[in-house]
Amino acid sequence: MARHDLPQGGHVLSIEIPNMHPDARNQFMQLLGEAHYLESVEDRLTYAYDASGGRCLPEAVICPQHATQVSQILSVADTYRIPVVPRGAGSGLTGGSVPLAGGVVMAMHRLNRIIAVDTDNLQAIVEPGVITAKLHAAVEARGLFYPPDPASMAFCTIGGNIAENAGGMRAVKYGVTKDFVMGLEVVLASGEIIHTGSRCVKDVVGYDLTRLFVGSEGTLGVITRAILKLLPLPEAKQTLMAAFAAIDPAAQTVAAIIKNGIIPATLEFMDNHCIRALAQYQDAGLPADAGAVLLIEVDGKPSQIEADLKRVQTVCQANGAIDVQVAGEKAGQDALWRSRRSIHAALTHLRPKWEEEDIAVPIARIPEMVRQLEAIGRERDVLIVSFGHAGDGNIHVNIANRNASAPPENLSQAREAILRATIALEGRIAAEHGIGLVKRNQIGWNLDERTLALMQRIKGLLDPNGILNPGKMFPSTVTCGRELPS
Amino acid sequence: MARHDLPQGGHVLSIEIPNMHPDARNQFMQLLGEAHYLESVEDRLTYAYDASGGRCLPEAVICPQHATQVSQILSVADTYRIPVVPRGAGSGLTGGSVPLAGGVVMAMHRLNRIIAVDTDNLQAIVEPGVITAKLHAAVEARGLFYPPDPASMAFCTIGGNIAENAGGMRAVKYGVTKDFVMGLEVVLASGEIIHTGSRCVKDVVGYDLTRLFVGSEGTLGVITRAILKLLPLPEAKQTLMAAFAAIDPAAQTVAAIIKNGIIPATLEFMDNHCIRALAQYQDAGLPADAGAVLLIEVDGKPSQIEADLKRVQTVCQANGAIDVQVAGEKAGQDALWRSRRSIHAALTHLRPKWEEEDIAVPIARIPEMVRQLEAIGRERDVLIVSFGHAGDGNIHVNIANRNASAPPENLSQAREAILRATIALEGRIAAEHGIGLVKRNQIGWNLDERTLALMQRIKGLLDPNGILNPGKMFPSTVTCGRELPS
Repeated sequence: MARHDLPQGGHVLSIEIPNMHPDARNQFMQLLGEAHYLESVEDRLTYAYDASGGRCLPEAVICPQHATQVSQILSVADTYRIPVVPRGAGSGLTGGSVPLAGGVVMAMHRLNRIIAVDTDNLQAIVEPGVITAKLHAAVEARGLFYPPDPASMAFCTIGGNIAENAGGMRAVKYGVTKDFVMGLEVVLASGEIIHTGSRCVKDVVGYDLTRLFVGSEGTLGVITRAILKLLPLPEAKQTLMAAFAAIDPAAQTVAAIIKNGIIPATLEFMDNHCIRALAQYQDAGLPADAGAVLLIEVDGKPSQIEADLKRVQTVCQANGAIDVQVAGEKAGQDALWRSRRSIHAALTHLRPKWEEEDIAVPIARIPEMVRQLEAIGRERDVLIVSFGHAGDGNIHVNIANRNASAPPENLSQAREAILRATIALEGRIAAEHGIGLVKRNQIGWNLDERTLALMQRIKGLLDPNGILNPGKMFPSTVTCGRELPS
Repeated sequence: MARHDLPQGGHVLSIEIPNMHPDARNQFMQLLGEAHYLESVEDRLTYAYDASGGRCLPEAVICPQHATQVSQILSVADTYRIPVVPRGAGSGLTGGSVPLAGGVVMAMHRLNRIIAVDTDNLQAIVEPGVITAKLHAAVEARGLFYPPDPASMAFCTIGGNIAENAGGMRAVKYGVTKDFVMGLEVVLASGEIIHTGSRCVKDVVGYDLTRLFVGSEGTLGVITRAILKLLPLPEAKQTLMAAFAAIDPAAQTVAAIIKNGIIPATLEFMDNHCIRALAQYQDAGLPADAGAVLLIEVDGKPSQIEADLKRVQTVCQANGAIDVQVAGEKAGQDALWRSRRSIHAALTHLRPKWEEEDIAVPIARIPEMVRQLEAIGRERDVLIVSFGHAGDGNIHVNIANRNASAPPENLSQAREAILRATIALEGRIAAEHGIGLVKRNQIGWNLDERTLALMQRIKGLLDPNGILNPGKMFPSTVTCGRELPS
């Protein structure tokens, strides 16, 4: 709903002169120096956006180097009531790092050290600015494994992943970011530095504050360090592709695989629209006429993989697969996964503009969800294209108008219908992309009043002056302090 | 530290007449009826204790049947400022369910339904009064697996497990209770009912409140329902016993197994004192002259188990094991695990009274921790016996005076030295038994001031009148409202 929630009627203010309290500016400048307190129009424009398409101009961009500096900055900001928006790589899809109320963007790229990869305890200690793929490489070089693999892993940061509780393809077997965060160093709005969790697997010393900050989207504190759990790197992996004549049997197969006690490392799903778009975009070796395709990766010990592959194959065939192929060579496997990761690009060739819903349902509800998506597409006369991490119940639903002359309300009505259907199936309207700006006014659809109120009371307790990422996650009418031309 | 923290100097009040506000009593009685509002001395005495040895008399025992009733009870209690102590089976080892400030014990045994075992989504929905072993049996009958296995699983409850974030032997591979709680229904002190989490693996709708309540020891709310994650039941398992001449190589082997990328289902450790105590207590087939023994269980697919066992064997031998045996038959395996579970009983034959510390360190620090325990035993002239879940870094340290004439301060000095050594090794002074009453005044040893203060502020936000389990988890001088004779 990004386009709908973003302010439409605002006018473009003069963006040249930052509107910053001079005492606060002096103090920031003293703390950081000119090199790391940025106020040029170019710098501010650079940090006005994220991948949601949201765009608001901050008054300044602040680039701290360590937790103490973050603490000092937040003390000043809290004193002068200056909004602070922490930012990783700006790859978020729900506006989490868009500086909605102006203030300062706190860019975390200088806190980018992998402090330790501890092969004895299977842990890593990292700063938030570490690129996720760099962490993957660093730990895999030592025979270890950090499973969370959001699609943007080549450029997104661990800090952003933690703030958004990022998911990815391997969640079906391994879980999401929250399942790998053992402890955090966090700077509160007041500037106080706290330490949650520990390096111990078993730890019942007080409340579990770690999880409160994971997924809090920069609204409760600024993460400055994390202790991450690692696993031994699986010795081998293998990919299987199963094609189905229609979408329904594919969806049923997803549920059947899990029900049969096989937990693949990934269990991805794409519908016929995706397959055809990919076929036009690059030769992915996918059967272009299939109604749906499942891409399945199993990992582990070589002997066990063989057995798992056979069982997956049997389940696929029993559920009506028209073609099941094991991708033999590594090159063949890579090609399949490359095509899976190209869906977004391929869809853009089909239609220039798509809107996306990131929903989740309990796994066994996927067939019903898929049927409802088809019905909604028909009823609202919109194009609905589905793909995603079906093995964990997470579907990325892409919606576009059928043609330029279609009434624009079809789209918004379809999106609301999708979210309502999700909720009716015990699902969640936000699975791995956050709430942010995009779904802040829908969060109450998925939470009862008292639960939502408690979350807001916790926000009030930790950030009484509301300086941390204002206007995000909870229902709000805050719009761009300084909107940019669209 | 139970014995030290418990009030020593109090006198026994007249325990016949409950000291309950008459209006509150009338309302409780109306809500519950005589059958479920208990105020006889016998009933109140029955609920005065838990397994920590703590003992305080409540004014009444309240047995609700469903969340609405819990909500109504808490509303009344909050209005009249009556302490409420939720209680599962009273098997806690740190006084979590001891009604320290009097008030009412809320016994949860009537909320004891397994509402669903969902084989499609690998989830169970349960009420808090379900006995843990009953849940094990119910899910295993359907080919599913709920890994948390606290030693008291035959009688403890899921609600107590969640409130204490209980661990067990299988944590090394599978994690602890918190890793299997997907969502909760919780009644707050105000009587408000909230719902945290969901049935979806991926869910980023708002803050993660689930984990805030897991391990909160009844101080933040009363759990009335839980969504639990299940796994496919492992197809096979196998046990290996490795004996070592001394404690040091055994401890090094624990770290080496993990470092070699093998994560056994359990990796248990016992020292020579345990082995000898067991040999005297029952013929466990353990080598009585060994300095230490590791009991290791691997689980999974039969083919993979074979390979894992061989690798574990190799690591044990490379680290100086003097004897490595695979327990062939199921009967042999059961005998080994039965002996492991009998250590407490066996130790009682060695000395009538032991005090216990439940500590955790990062796995690689186990050899150092074990050396320090030996040094502390020598320095303070006390008997220190160690066993536990070495694979996850959790050691249960049992301490006794060498003889009746030993100065009693040896014991308390040794316990403090153990906790200080644990902290110096980046460990935790409470691993899986909670803080409760027993370690409330030590919690600040393991948390920095600001982190502890934040936890207390969260407590204040959720329970402003302090009615939920007062005097627990945080530093406090609250002692028994009505102490019982010891």
